[in-house]
Amino acid sequence: MTATDIVWHEHKVTKVQRSTLKQQQPCILWFTGLSGAGKSTIAGAVEQKLFELGHHTYLLDGDNVRHGLNGDLGFSDADRVENIRRIGEMAKLFTDAGLIVLSAFISPFRADRRMVRELVEKNEFIEVYMDTPLAECEQRDPKGLYQKARNGIIKNFTGIDSEYEVPSAAEIEIKTAEFNVEECAEQIIQYLKDNNLIFSS
Amino acid sequence: MTATDIVWHEHKVTKVQRSTLKQQQPCILWFTGLSGAGKSTIAGAVEQKLFELGHHTYLLDGDNVRHGLNGDLGFSDADRVENIRRIGEMAKLFTDAGLIVLSAFISPFRADRRMVRELVEKNEFIEVYMDTPLAECEQRDPKGLYQKARNGIIKNFTGIDSEYEVPSAAEIEIKTAEFNVEECAEQIIQYLKDNNLIFSS
Repeated sequence: MTATDIVWHEHKVTKVQRSTLKQQQPCILWFTGLSGAGKSTIAGAVEQKLFELGHHTYLLDGDNVRHGLNGDLGFSDADRVENIRRIGEMAKLFTDAGLIVLSAFISPFRADRRMVRELVEKNEFIEVYMDTPLAECEQRDPKGLYQKARNGIIKNFTGIDSEYEVPSAAEIEIKTAEFNVEECAEQIIQYLKDNNLIFSS
Repeated sequence: MTATDIVWHEHKVTKVQRSTLKQQQPCILWFTGLSGAGKSTIAGAVEQKLFELGHHTYLLDGDNVRHGLNGDLGFSDADRVENIRRIGEMAKLFTDAGLIVLSAFISPFRADRRMVRELVEKNEFIEVYMDTPLAECEQRDPKGLYQKARNGIIKNFTGIDSEYEVPSAAEIEIKTAEFNVEECAEQIIQYLKDNNLIFSS
């Protein structure tokens, strides 16, 4: 028998096997909200807590996506939809790899968020609405973007001259104007525990 | 003090921390070679072995990429370059997440493979050339594609009427016509051990 006669079947490691190795249920924590609502900050704090608990995570945000995978996209309506689509497909692959994915993008439109929800299995998509009033976001204005939008330097800015569609049934709502970062992050960790997405080994 | 006064700094979990949690050096095993050369099969076998050793991996191949992230791409020259670019960017994110990534795509052009190599850190890109003679691939013809290419039903088929540029300095060369699947996979595992990319805990 030569090598050619070998049956070349596939040995695929499954999502369940990867998840078992990592002792967690893969899922997507999809942070959505206005600019300045605290998406990246809270997502980062949640990831830090998950890491300390021994969990395997990955955070997708503008820093690692905008200049890389989605570096060819601009800000037209079509490109904004494609941006979210690719992030969703990528998040799906990371859950397939057994990870808990955190994504932090404004993602202002319900249709786009629904598209991502439908990419993955039921219960794998957890919408985390950063329920921060516009006035609070504008007061924080960490990157000076609201000021620029008000002055007309930036067009189509979410909350100013482009709509943010509030989630109608987000799995988690976080009121960042009422709780500090630690408390907000803990609320999300508690959700993951209550829903058996993370558990002690 | 109110929540607004909190300094909203980022707590980012680093690649080194993720890698430490998983007890491995993240890297990309980039399988390249003709259709039928054994890329997916050997990559699958390597992944299975890594899983059994307790390592955290992810395999990117046509099955999970073509209909998802790259579902909008066709087979024009521009789309083929974009296909490899996105796979490279995605592989980079998976290494950033601390995983050992296996990718199995023909990727016939040196320039495209070099583009991916340059995306990641030195020593993170491991080119695995499936050195299988065209005649052998054509004899295997697992999907009947060579037959169709010979009959002119498929155009621009790598090895028939489109070039495959042999790697000039691949980190690993596998002669699938001379060794069986088990032996080929073991050669790659041995490379990872010899280069301290995987180690026993």
